[in-house]
Amino acid sequence: MLSRLQHTVRSTEVDFLGHVNNAKYQEYLEWGRFGWIRDAALTRDRFAHARIAPVVVHVSLDYKREAVLDDVLTIETALVKIGNRSLHFRQRVLREGGEVACDGKVVLALFNLETRQSSALPDELRAELERLIAPRYGEQG
Amino acid sequence: MLSRLQHTVRSTEVDFLGHVNNAKYQEYLEWGRFGWIRDAALTRDRFAHARIAPVVVHVSLDYKREAVLDDVLTIETALVKIGNRSLHFRQRVLREGGEVACDGKVVLALFNLETRQSSALPDELRAELERLIAPRYGEQG
Amino acid sequence: MLSRLQHTVRSTEVDFLGHVNNAKYQEYLEWGRFGWIRDAALTRDRFAHARIAPVVVHVSLDYKREAVLDDVLTIETALVKIGNRSLHFRQRVLREGGEVACDGKVVLALFNLETRQSSALPDELRAELERLIAPRYGEQG
Amino acid sequence: MLSRLQHTVRSTEVDFLGHVNNAKYQEYLEWGRFGWIRDAALTRDRFAHARIAPVVVHVSLDYKREAVLDDVLTIETALVKIGNRSLHFRQRVLREGGEVACDGKVVLALFNLETRQSSALPDELRAELERLIAPRYGEQG
Repeated sequence: MLSRLQHTVRSTEVDFLGHVNNAKYQEYLEWGRFGWIRDAALTRDRFAHARIAPVVVHVSLDYKREAVLDDVLTIETALVKIGNRSLHFRQRVLREGGEVACDGKVVLALFNLETRQSSALPDELRAELERLIAPRYGEQG
Repeated sequence: MLSRLQHTVRSTEVDFLGHVNNAKYQEYLEWGRFGWIRDAALTRDRFAHARIAPVVVHVSLDYKREAVLDDVLTIETALVKIGNRSLHFRQRVLREGGEVACDGKVVLALFNLETRQSSALPDELRAELERLIAPRYGEQG
Repeated sequence: MLSRLQHTVRSTEVDFLGHVNNAKYQEYLEWGRFGWIRDAALTRDRFAHARIAPVVVHVSLDYKREAVLDDVLTIETALVKIGNRSLHFRQRVLREGGEVACDGKVVLALFNLETRQSSALPDELRAELERLIAPRYGEQG
Repeated sequence: MLSRLQHTVRSTEVDFLGHVNNAKYQEYLEWGRFGWIRDAALTRDRFAHARIAPVVVHVSLDYKREAVLDDVLTIETALVKIGNRSLHFRQRVLREGGEVACDGKVVLALFNLETRQSSALPDELRAELERLIAPRYGEQG
């Protein structure tokens, strides 16, 4: 499954250089992952019941084009791999013509909200997530 | 040269999971780079005169420990390599006991504010930056 | 003229109490004013040519209902009065059913970007703005 | 009691006009109120035990001077009045020379985290807060 979320760049997302600040893209990617969970009809309750939450443990981003005020961006999000304790996402932020503004790999671990330690993926949730993997999206140039 | 900037975690930097949001660390690292420029007595004017500004083109971050409200963090910043059009930084965010909360590599390119394209490093600026490289900091485990 | 901008609450806009942080509403209102300028077909260039920019000098906000993740908000913006050096806006943030989450009065002054002092409103711009006033919106309960 | 918190303006707090964005001041004021709670040795646990949290219901801010990158600001916070369900703060953000950048009145209500409705102030907490009121600070010009 590939999830797409549209967002229009707002004034407070633009820094003193007149373009979207690098840190803001990580917020965009987080919004994209929430959109992915919604599209997957994986209610966040499923995580909440297990008292676990996905947290970012690694991010690798390439910034390729700048985005400016009023640009209509598309945030693409795909789950490309599942590890023992980790979920591997590929996410891209596209400008209107389809140009890639930011290309990212994001690894999340499951975090137990009681112990505040990483946690293994419950079997039932793993089965559900495996059906959602989009392996090819991870390999796109 | 290794630059250190201290920061106390503020309420609006903490997300609904009760810890510093992953995107906020990229802001911390930007603050650290501004501190590095200040410590290097490289006035930003030097960049402004040349109508160039360093912009982030790549970032790779490992999140190792969470940070919470009122934590006193140290943001360490070192220039570890200079390319033709790029500056390679290693940056770490440490908690009070010295534990690494976030370990990052950040590559900046020089961006011409008129053409909005990447720009080669002026020779004089390069000479000044080369004296500031801290190659070993990039190799630390 | 009454301008309306729709916005869906994103994860990083929600604080540790599980609702939109009070400071975020001021960003929403700024986005609403940019939308108002766009709807008024007042290009920001008009301000840029005169080397002036509207800046906030006073804000008064009443928070009436909380907004949470995924809420679809409408930001309403109306110019209700023009002073010698000031523009008076009334802005409201509404939840989906029409309930008011936040009700605000915002006064902007024109700021000269060269002198960094407040500036009188150029006559031509004043004439254009006067046609856009929505006095009744300011009086609504 | 008057609480003072120092803060150095960071790059991501500055907007495209080259000064601290108006919304950011509300974050500064929130940080100041957390500092006030700390200085008052009122542990936030006291609120947490009662399952109540103070939330902002009204804010009124006058912006008097701009603040720019690297400015060292002082955020002053004083409780000036206690209502039946509300706490009234006066807060000011000062620049280094003592000039007022932003002058604010902030009213908080106690919010029951279970019912998500406003809540009366428990008697014991009221007694503790009354000793902390600084009525004169509210009247300063």
